[in-house]
Amino acid sequence: MLTEKTVSGFLEELASNSPAPGGGSVAALSGALGSALTSMVCRLTIGKKKYAQVEAEITSTLNKSENLRRTFSSLIDRDTQAFNKVMEAFSLPKETEDQKGLRSAAIQMATKEAALVPLEVMKHVIDGLALAKIAAEKGNTNSVSDAGVSALMLHSAARSAALNVRINLSSITDTEFVGWRSEEVTSIERTSKNMTEEILQIVGSKITPP
Amino acid sequence: MLTEKTVSGFLEELASNSPAPGGGSVAALSGALGSALTSMVCRLTIGKKKYAQVEAEITSTLNKSENLRRTFSSLIDRDTQAFNKVMEAFSLPKETEDQKGLRSAAIQMATKEAALVPLEVMKHVIDGLALAKIAAEKGNTNSVSDAGVSALMLHSAARSAALNVRINLSSITDTEFVGWRSEEVTSIERTSKNMTEEILQIVGSKITPP
Repeated sequence: MLTEKTVSGFLEELASNSPAPGGGSVAALSGALGSALTSMVCRLTIGKKKYAQVEAEITSTLNKSENLRRTFSSLIDRDTQAFNKVMEAFSLPKETEDQKGLRSAAIQMATKEAALVPLEVMKHVIDGLALAKIAAEKGNTNSVSDAGVSALMLHSAARSAALNVRINLSSITDTEFVGWRSEEVTSIERTSKNMTEEILQIVGSKITPP
Repeated sequence: MLTEKTVSGFLEELASNSPAPGGGSVAALSGALGSALTSMVCRLTIGKKKYAQVEAEITSTLNKSENLRRTFSSLIDRDTQAFNKVMEAFSLPKETEDQKGLRSAAIQMATKEAALVPLEVMKHVIDGLALAKIAAEKGNTNSVSDAGVSALMLHSAARSAALNVRINLSSITDTEFVGWRSEEVTSIERTSKNMTEEILQIVGSKITPP
């Protein structure tokens, strides 16, 4: 599992001349980093007298962001696995017409899966941003910049995943599949941008200039 | 060192109820992830016949992005150390007037350093984006989405670091220091945004719709 490597080992493998792990796994990791920061802000809020009134909501936010962190973490590996399956399909024999047909169908199927994994990352980003917003609005003000970084890393996850959905869609021949997914990507990307700007507004208003 | 933790261990520590590591270290990690992806695109380009003409430029880009990855990696720890120094200064005794004065001076000095570390992250982002642009323009087209994710992670590093500079500036009383640094942050953030959009344009133009 990629998450069992050290951070520097992961960076080393990322930088290596193997195409996987690549941008898709980084998108999922970015989501995990964002969720972890929302969890931190929640933990720095819970138990503080000043925030007693929001404790129940922050505790529920923490549970959700911790679940999300686990989901994103598993998507780091799932993206690399999906990419490797595409590579495997490409390496199928292509001597006879039958083989060519089977290979081409296997490539299409694997590429669809490789598009769906980053799309799943994108959907979880929207949930993550809703939690980051609660952290920014109601969490410990001393950590409000961390809620902002949480939103930025989640948004970067969405934009990075979008590139990975699109590069996969560009080689899928099922036009109906491509059409629906393209629209979904565009729509989630826009939502992510709007939510992130909203959170950064809240964060900015709480960082009082000296 | 934080980079010697496993990825899941790092995420765990990030999500914990200790304020460090926090958003500042994540900003530096985001820069390291971006640089690693530029390195990967370079390595997937070098040695390929189709890209023989750009091999010298891509090799030099790779050397620079690998240096940058190391720099960002060391900034992950430096940010956490700078934050801890601020906490130490806050814990100095404050019983006598003398102690109060010393404590307050120590807090100011440590907070300046805590503002300068993310500012350094921001400056390196601009170098990283220049390399990501070369990777997007001239690198292996099959990995162009990775060059795009590289830019997105670098830009997220800049924006995240900017929040960390600003939250530190908000408690610094040296108005000259604050004025200069604020302008720098705003200017680097704008440059980072423009460079990132430019890179994403290049990437988008190479991801041909099906």
